[in-house]
Amino acid sequence: MRFIEKEDINFNNPVILEAFPGTGLVGSIAGFQIIKELNLKYFGYFEVEGVPPLTTIENGIPYPPVRAYAKEDLVVLFSDVIIPPAKINELSRLIVETFLEKDAKLFISLGGLMAGKSEKVFGIANNNKMIEYLKNYVEIFKFGVVGGMSGNILIRCGDAGIDAVGLLAETVGIRPDPRGGANLLEILNKMLDINVNVENLIKEAEAIENKLKELAEQHLKMMSKSKKEYPMYI
Amino acid sequence: MRFIEKEDINFNNPVILEAFPGTGLVGSIAGFQIIKELNLKYFGYFEVEGVPPLTTIENGIPYPPVRAYAKEDLVVLFSDVIIPPAKINELSRLIVETFLEKDAKLFISLGGLMAGKSEKVFGIANNNKMIEYLKNYVEIFKFGVVGGMSGNILIRCGDAGIDAVGLLAETVGIRPDPRGGANLLEILNKMLDINVNVENLIKEAEAIENKLKELAEQHLKMMSKSKKEYPMYI
Amino acid sequence: MRFIEKEDINFNNPVILEAFPGTGLVGSIAGFQIIKELNLKYFGYFEVEGVPPLTTIENGIPYPPVRAYAKEDLVVLFSDVIIPPAKINELSRLIVETFLEKDAKLFISLGGLMAGKSEKVFGIANNNKMIEYLKNYVEIFKFGVVGGMSGNILIRCGDAGIDAVGLLAETVGIRPDPRGGANLLEILNKMLDINVNVENLIKEAEAIENKLKELAEQHLKMMSKSKKEYPMYI
Amino acid sequence: MRFIEKEDINFNNPVILEAFPGTGLVGSIAGFQIIKELNLKYFGYFEVEGVPPLTTIENGIPYPPVRAYAKEDLVVLFSDVIIPPAKINELSRLIVETFLEKDAKLFISLGGLMAGKSEKVFGIANNNKMIEYLKNYVEIFKFGVVGGMSGNILIRCGDAGIDAVGLLAETVGIRPDPRGGANLLEILNKMLDINVNVENLIKEAEAIENKLKELAEQHLKMMSKSKKEYPMYI
Amino acid sequence: MRFIEKEDINFNNPVILEAFPGTGLVGSIAGFQIIKELNLKYFGYFEVEGVPPLTTIENGIPYPPVRAYAKEDLVVLFSDVIIPPAKINELSRLIVETFLEKDAKLFISLGGLMAGKSEKVFGIANNNKMIEYLKNYVEIFKFGVVGGMSGNILIRCGDAGIDAVGLLAETVGIRPDPRGGANLLEILNKMLDINVNVENLIKEAEAIENKLKELAEQHLKMMSKSKKEYPMYI
Repeated sequence: MRFIEKEDINFNNPVILEAFPGTGLVGSIAGFQIIKELNLKYFGYFEVEGVPPLTTIENGIPYPPVRAYAKEDLVVLFSDVIIPPAKINELSRLIVETFLEKDAKLFISLGGLMAGKSEKVFGIANNNKMIEYLKNYVEIFKFGVVGGMSGNILIRCGDAGIDAVGLLAETVGIRPDPRGGANLLEILNKMLDINVNVENLIKEAEAIENKLKELAEQHLKMMSKSKKEYPMYI
Repeated sequence: MRFIEKEDINFNNPVILEAFPGTGLVGSIAGFQIIKELNLKYFGYFEVEGVPPLTTIENGIPYPPVRAYAKEDLVVLFSDVIIPPAKINELSRLIVETFLEKDAKLFISLGGLMAGKSEKVFGIANNNKMIEYLKNYVEIFKFGVVGGMSGNILIRCGDAGIDAVGLLAETVGIRPDPRGGANLLEILNKMLDINVNVENLIKEAEAIENKLKELAEQHLKMMSKSKKEYPMYI
Repeated sequence: MRFIEKEDINFNNPVILEAFPGTGLVGSIAGFQIIKELNLKYFGYFEVEGVPPLTTIENGIPYPPVRAYAKEDLVVLFSDVIIPPAKINELSRLIVETFLEKDAKLFISLGGLMAGKSEKVFGIANNNKMIEYLKNYVEIFKFGVVGGMSGNILIRCGDAGIDAVGLLAETVGIRPDPRGGANLLEILNKMLDINVNVENLIKEAEAIENKLKELAEQHLKMMSKSKKEYPMYI
Repeated sequence: MRFIEKEDINFNNPVILEAFPGTGLVGSIAGFQIIKELNLKYFGYFEVEGVPPLTTIENGIPYPPVRAYAKEDLVVLFSDVIIPPAKINELSRLIVETFLEKDAKLFISLGGLMAGKSEKVFGIANNNKMIEYLKNYVEIFKFGVVGGMSGNILIRCGDAGIDAVGLLAETVGIRPDPRGGANLLEILNKMLDINVNVENLIKEAEAIENKLKELAEQHLKMMSKSKKEYPMYI
Repeated sequence: MRFIEKEDINFNNPVILEAFPGTGLVGSIAGFQIIKELNLKYFGYFEVEGVPPLTTIENGIPYPPVRAYAKEDLVVLFSDVIIPPAKINELSRLIVETFLEKDAKLFISLGGLMAGKSEKVFGIANNNKMIEYLKNYVEIFKFGVVGGMSGNILIRCGDAGIDAVGLLAETVGIRPDPRGGANLLEILNKMLDINVNVENLIKEAEAIENKLKELAEQHLKMMSKSKKEYPMYI
């Protein structure tokens, strides 16, 4: 496993945002929005064996599935494929090592918490100083178990002596959740002092939610109607 | 596989208590109680490939699944995940090597024996001197087969020339068994001259046991009633 | 994995045509036609572990499954077996390395896009200069995901600093599709200034298509007849 | 894989008896009897990855599953677990190498032949000199295929230039067969000039056989009775 | 993987005959006949991991499953087990390397072609000179795909610059086919100027064929009888 650099970027203590796919895809949704709105450049890719050999084409040019976009002070790690659990330890270590060499000043990992709703965002951090810092933005996640990259990369950062925080957005379930993504983005806008448009994601979320509400109402009508017409005894 | 040290602890011939999950979780239950009541510090973690990439969050801070807590004269090895059988040999060796460097004076392995009841604790040891020592506290386990870490770590300690004993608590079955954990804790309180509260575990056990008794009585009534009403001939 | 050279060919900045089997076999069909019509010589083979140990016999002489045919200015990579996904990264790298040593000037990868028809050919490239070059011949593939060798080999060429393009022919489905192969061949005739006969493939395609049309008509008659005789209500 | 020596034994050209579990457990039964009656000492163990991580407890002391017992002129190799087929080559080699260093003078491998009865013991050897020697004790096994350690260790000994024989006892089937074990022990008593009690095993065998005879008679009575009472036509 | 030499044979440019098991076992049948009738000596064995750990006993002496028999000018490679496909590349390479050191002058690979009959033998070769040579004995195999060792070993010989031919006997199906073996033997008798008895195999074949003919006739009678008695309409 290794990182292949494709662009020369003049880094200035960048923040590293890990936005790999996870529960509700909330991290990927927020990360994608940042890449597009801040016009980040394709910076390079991680060669990860065991990942399906897919490439994404954009305007005729193919890109490897696990890659990094960047500008001077910000890197977003994005993936078209789910990172296989057996590769998470190794990839975490490679990410930390790669961006320590670029004098990263902070790692932020984005993830989702299955919660049946998409309201809050919780924070975790790899030391108490960062827990205090996080309290300015989010509620601290008290006790629980977290899978995937989020916890793992925080521990690797701790081992390497660099600050790292995780933002875990509540999300309805397993379907892609733009509202959860928007909630992450609102926190990131404040933390990173950026100004990424959140409206699109919220509209997308409302459209999905209205559609679901409609379906539920139809279902309800049908049920109440069917009750009158075909009473059931069980 | 390697141990990553996270805290500087000024060890003084510590006793190493292996409390990884096993039958009835009796070892983990006793180990957890010791960690909390003696205020042990998080000392470091074992990087074990093949274990699910989970992290446990406590007060916003993520911890790897297989880890060590310690104070000057005591280390407790604890895990949120079951150690995969294929990793036991290698992990045993790494544990012994790691804590020999800290001048460990004794290894104690905690485990459970499925016995349909939670009464006795049996002892095993890696040499006859320690068998004699154990007789002051528990009955010696005469003959049988033991899986998991318990026997394995004793053999590795023997190879390295260091004393090791195992405490095997009887346990009802496969459900978590706080009474078996309490029985281990009572022996450890004497052996290590510590004073960890056992009452909590016994109350927890009694609550579970009363609940089970109640369920059994209801079941009995229902059965005798059904016998009268619906006699069965088979 | 390694390349075993079997013939001494006096290369002069050859173009490397990757024609391994993929969707609709369009690349293999076009590649085979070029090998035969331009009388390319058997140049060598790739030793790929994990591929079924088959050999193809031609006029009594066995050939390994993954091989290269060549003349001074053209190499065609051909395979009797599908390249296992887990070998694609390594084989891509070996191909690029092998033919950089022969001063290759361009890599062209052939592939198929399942489209329900066999009309267009789309282009991808590993840099914007080659995108502009491709626009003279084909429409650029805007956005999507591509599996197999096609995208992968373009990325490896990009890493090695050599130009590479991919030609992706629309294809009906998963059956071998000579019309899609012919469409690739027509582009290649222009791009490489060669003159490989396309008529054979088109006749083959028309024969298949007429057969399918006939079957469809018979089916239609049978259905309309059955409708009259056995009206169906569902 | 390696051998870990646990006891200092002053060897004098020992005979190495391989008594790992196989068909009918005849070798293990005979080997166990020799270990107990000749008071062999626990000499060491083979660390074999892929074997279940079990330890056998005897009088409170845990032992690894694949181990060696010894006295000055005799070693018995014993295992609580079946050696996985994929480990047989490597373990055979390690055994031969380990005991050549102890100036072993002969290897004897014990095994079973499924024969529907437990009468004869057959011999195999890794050279014609040993075939002649064996004829003093047993019938030579003419032609057939043998699995497991028995044949394998003879071939490894032949490669290392040391004499080796195999004793293959007929055995009824797959259940543990003390009579087959006794038959092996009678040959070994003569070959090694030892005097291990065979009576226990024969009594055990007779007890099992009487039990089986009784069951068969009951079954017969039941069948003849049921025939009269419930005649069957199929 | 390695070859272990067991006998000192004074080779004089031997021909190497590969007779490993394949379709119809025709190669093994012919090879076995040559080993017995020409009194070849057991020369050594190939240590192949992944092959079942079986040993064949002959007159009390165990032999490993994949082995070589030889005399001054002829080596026959024979195996009691099918070579696993994943081992074919490596074993081919080891065979060629081993016997190049013995100044082999020609490799002959024996195999079967499923053909529904056992009449012809076809030839393949690793260069055109050998194709011409083969035409004196057999028809050349024009076009097709061959699995297993036959094609593979020819390619390895070609890479090493040594002549190799393959003889592929037609065979009825998947049952052992002595007639196909006899057909191979007749060609080998001429090619190698040896005089191995073919009659035994032909008699064996005729016995099998007569038995099958008889069964077919009985079946036919039964069918025609059943037709009259129980006419069937489907």
